[in-house]
Amino acid sequence: MALIVQKYGGTSVGSLDRIRNVAARVKHARDEGNQVVAVVSAMSGITDKLIGMAHELTQEPSERELDVLLATGEQQSIALVSMALQELGVDAASVTGRQAGIQTTGTHTRGRIMQLEPKLMQGYLDAGKTLVVAGFQGITADGMIHTLGRGGSDLTAIAVAAALKADICQILTDVDGVYTCDPRVVQNARKLPEISYDEMLEMASSGSKVMQSRSVEFAKKFGVVFEVRSSLNDNPGTIVTQEHPNMEDVVIRGVSIERSQARITITGIPDEPGMSGKILGALADAEINIDMIVSNIAHDGFARHSFTMHANDLGKAQAALKPILSDLAPDSAIQTEAGIAKLSAVGIGMRSHSGVASTMFKALGENGINIGMISTSEIKIAVTVDEAQIEDAARAVHDAFHLDKAPA
Amino acid sequence: MALIVQKYGGTSVGSLDRIRNVAARVKHARDEGNQVVAVVSAMSGITDKLIGMAHELTQEPSERELDVLLATGEQQSIALVSMALQELGVDAASVTGRQAGIQTTGTHTRGRIMQLEPKLMQGYLDAGKTLVVAGFQGITADGMIHTLGRGGSDLTAIAVAAALKADICQILTDVDGVYTCDPRVVQNARKLPEISYDEMLEMASSGSKVMQSRSVEFAKKFGVVFEVRSSLNDNPGTIVTQEHPNMEDVVIRGVSIERSQARITITGIPDEPGMSGKILGALADAEINIDMIVSNIAHDGFARHSFTMHANDLGKAQAALKPILSDLAPDSAIQTEAGIAKLSAVGIGMRSHSGVASTMFKALGENGINIGMISTSEIKIAVTVDEAQIEDAARAVHDAFHLDKAPA
Repeated sequence: MALIVQKYGGTSVGSLDRIRNVAARVKHARDEGNQVVAVVSAMSGITDKLIGMAHELTQEPSERELDVLLATGEQQSIALVSMALQELGVDAASVTGRQAGIQTTGTHTRGRIMQLEPKLMQGYLDAGKTLVVAGFQGITADGMIHTLGRGGSDLTAIAVAAALKADICQILTDVDGVYTCDPRVVQNARKLPEISYDEMLEMASSGSKVMQSRSVEFAKKFGVVFEVRSSLNDNPGTIVTQEHPNMEDVVIRGVSIERSQARITITGIPDEPGMSGKILGALADAEINIDMIVSNIAHDGFARHSFTMHANDLGKAQAALKPILSDLAPDSAIQTEAGIAKLSAVGIGMRSHSGVASTMFKALGENGINIGMISTSEIKIAVTVDEAQIEDAARAVHDAFHLDKAPA
Repeated sequence: MALIVQKYGGTSVGSLDRIRNVAARVKHARDEGNQVVAVVSAMSGITDKLIGMAHELTQEPSERELDVLLATGEQQSIALVSMALQELGVDAASVTGRQAGIQTTGTHTRGRIMQLEPKLMQGYLDAGKTLVVAGFQGITADGMIHTLGRGGSDLTAIAVAAALKADICQILTDVDGVYTCDPRVVQNARKLPEISYDEMLEMASSGSKVMQSRSVEFAKKFGVVFEVRSSLNDNPGTIVTQEHPNMEDVVIRGVSIERSQARITITGIPDEPGMSGKILGALADAEINIDMIVSNIAHDGFARHSFTMHANDLGKAQAALKPILSDLAPDSAIQTEAGIAKLSAVGIGMRSHSGVASTMFKALGENGINIGMISTSEIKIAVTVDEAQIEDAARAVHDAFHLDKAPA
């Protein structure tokens, strides 16, 4: 008898019919002889509706009260899914974040899970019950209701799986799994049977939004093997797990793309220690997420920094840079470029294979695609290209590494 | 500086505009120099909507899960009312039933308050906060979410007022207070400035549905003086309090009526000990609330019992009686009568004044109203009359005791 944790997102429980469908799936896993813990999100639309009400009452709702308000969405889901299971004859019990023993820390609306005390859940499982746990929520040490922010239900599922030492954790979603590239862009993209945590993290941070990075990081930290699979069919999905030697046989696991990027280049920065930190600090203070960073010394002896960000942040970034640059670098100038996109090739095989960058750059060159910035990590090569060319670029790199074919 | 507990029902928080109105009222009390604790219900309609969803999923929803589902209604209200208060510049904090320290016992959906540990609330009050507490809910000793059933938010308000030693507890509702009779029936009915707990209990159990009896009983037990008043205006309402000697000067405090009653009379019951207990026990097992009970011995030497109930329960009562009567009282027969109503005259002054019953019966007789059953308690005389005559009866008794005029 295996213990399975299944996570169902807001779309999967978005109507009473879908809730019945979730109940049927849970029952099916149960009928196959497993213990099942379902982690569910709020019915899709509810959270937005509640946030809308809050904003009608006040421009800046208190985050403490937003947590109290939003946590009701998942609480409704667990009760309704439990009832649907009971209607199918399954002995089900709902479990709120507090009852699941999920203790959190951090600011309201962006909680982090500190620990999980599964005593109540374990008792219920021992008594033969099927559990329906509220995703996205926990409770602070002083008893306040706390939500976990974006991707919070995934995080709950991973944490519950870790605490209960589950055999499998299934993240059931509206995609079939993790693909070698977005199938809407690269038609012969292939579903990966397996991917390592680190590859998944690089894919996620490079635009493959199957899951938030922090859930993957949490799973890696606690060694929770999980599977991303569809809530609409029974196809096997993608197992996300610790890397093992066989994985390195594949040079590139996948290619991910991120659109709507913009670049800022600052020239004429005095080549002095601490300058970069001050400039990036100003952007961090303005809550702008910087992605790629390239720096060097120009022929004029001044430093130049380039970095990318979401295009929406371009204006805010320029405004944040202006005062600090006029103060620290009176000779500096800012150039900006929007309409670019990022392409990343990701694979732990890169560590033991050479020539990856040259294969990639050659493929792009042969297809007439100009490369802007380049940045690399141990398991990723990322480049910026003109946004109009990103799909061609993705297909070229996907082909160059033969990602449409399963490795031998 | 007084500590005021205010209870707002579902209609009072039934829309975002009404929530703003509640916030303005709370702020007003606060601006007058008081500490304020608002106890709120779910927005009207929400509870019914949630129950509807539950019943779409399953015919008999688990009461444990219903509690989890329904408690979200009040949790949403406290967050929204707190936000509306914050928008007005009031330092408000929401408090769930659990956070209010409301510990309950009893079956799910019909919880009883066992104790209230107000540590968190007291700390917030000491810090100058205005509190918004979820009505209708608490938590069991083992951490389960528990709702308090009908009138639960009133109960919460009374319990919070008792635990915090509040100076005033205001039950804000859609009526102005407690009247000498229903003003829709008796046009010159008068709002009572004051009524004793016991009178309020007799009025409530006789159809004046301003509040559920158990909230009044709870207030009596813990000596919580409360005021029933309108949430729509600033008129003083009715103070419900312990009786004091002056109250006895008034013979009758009020007249209440209850429609849609039915009577069952059983004749031919052997006059043996324990028979009544067995018959009433069968009705209790069938969850039928019996109201008036009249028993005596007929000229044939057999006992006869008559009792009243809501007309809706008549069929269920007959079905419950049939097997036990054929077993215990083979010579018995059942007569039934629907289309009757109950009129009660209530007042603690009855204890020290004689002639109350004769005044009442004379008034009814002079108006051509025939009396069916009669039952009395120390502070109440109740009669059944034909339902078509109940309004005439109420006016006749109201006039006979000059209830339209304030006592000297």
